[in-house]
Amino acid sequence: MYPADLENLIESFEFFPGVGRKTAERMAFAVMNMSEERVHLLSSSIENVKENICLCSICNSFTDSSVCNICSSELRDDSVLCVVEDPRSVFLFESLGLFKGKYHVLKGLISPAMGINPEDIELEKLVDRVRNVHPKEIILAFRPSIEGETTALYIKRVLGDLDIKISKIASGVPIGADMEYIDAMTLERALRDRKNVE
Amino acid sequence: MYPADLENLIESFEFFPGVGRKTAERMAFAVMNMSEERVHLLSSSIENVKENICLCSICNSFTDSSVCNICSSELRDDSVLCVVEDPRSVFLFESLGLFKGKYHVLKGLISPAMGINPEDIELEKLVDRVRNVHPKEIILAFRPSIEGETTALYIKRVLGDLDIKISKIASGVPIGADMEYIDAMTLERALRDRKNVE
Repeated sequence: MYPADLENLIESFEFFPGVGRKTAERMAFAVMNMSEERVHLLSSSIENVKENICLCSICNSFTDSSVCNICSSELRDDSVLCVVEDPRSVFLFESLGLFKGKYHVLKGLISPAMGINPEDIELEKLVDRVRNVHPKEIILAFRPSIEGETTALYIKRVLGDLDIKISKIASGVPIGADMEYIDAMTLERALRDRKNVE
Repeated sequence: MYPADLENLIESFEFFPGVGRKTAERMAFAVMNMSEERVHLLSSSIENVKENICLCSICNSFTDSSVCNICSSELRDDSVLCVVEDPRSVFLFESLGLFKGKYHVLKGLISPAMGINPEDIELEKLVDRVRNVHPKEIILAFRPSIEGETTALYIKRVLGDLDIKISKIASGVPIGADMEYIDAMTLERALRDRKNVE
């Protein structure tokens, strides 16, 4: 129905997660309304990302060299390793600027229900790294979920023989949240992990 | 924070309407997860749309030639002209396959509140076309709104001296809608434009 080039672009946009036909159409029309310069920037950025960005050979985070800035930095503390489920978490932590250790990015979380096993998320690479570097502490920063718990327990089991502290970030009621919108599981966790007022 | 190429792509995606930082990040990560072939298809589709798609010199709809398929078709009825506010409406009507006349696409709707005047939406082009072709009927298919009404009244005024029927698509309660979710203005209109049960 649309001219072929327009239809092709709409179909290309439909490959983005969460983008249906209507959104893809809106995006294609947006491209038509962009300046020529902006369109070239967009298409070349897409090519550049695919060509130049790869995974860090040490931590699996996104990088434009073979080892990422954080892994190669001498200013970062090798003795604390923050394990995350997704490269986005690395950039989230970095944007806060609070954590000074290093990261390790898994390729997701273990999920028996979805058939995702330890080898699917490359847990072996984390285990090898930990056995080599021998950090003092591993902080697990997964989203609070069955999958996060399962992955944490598995890591605890395979690394339990080493003298390494394994911790996980706290879950509970987010700061600033309205109590009435907190779900039951979060509230239960917040109650169970309550802290003394000091 | 992100590698430069990734940051550039995220910023490019932020130029799409309704796309904020988080969505742009998700889209950029989606590009990284696409196959090389898919990425090339995406970037070349973007370039092709900008290069090859233009507005039909007669009706203003999107086309890859100087006159669109509909305007140049001898199977379409020249005596009925459907006036829409956006090229998307043309493709929407076409996907239904019910309308056999021709189209004219305005560049939006008149909106005194937003400072959009008849010349901003190229109404003159419609008026010229109507005076030349002299169709039997003009169907106005604008979204029901103050702007739609204003534009309809303006068209009625400037073309009122010609012997042409000017109609507009019906507004009312959409088929299948839950009555409790219908807004007051729609309900008022549906009540006012009620039809005899036959």
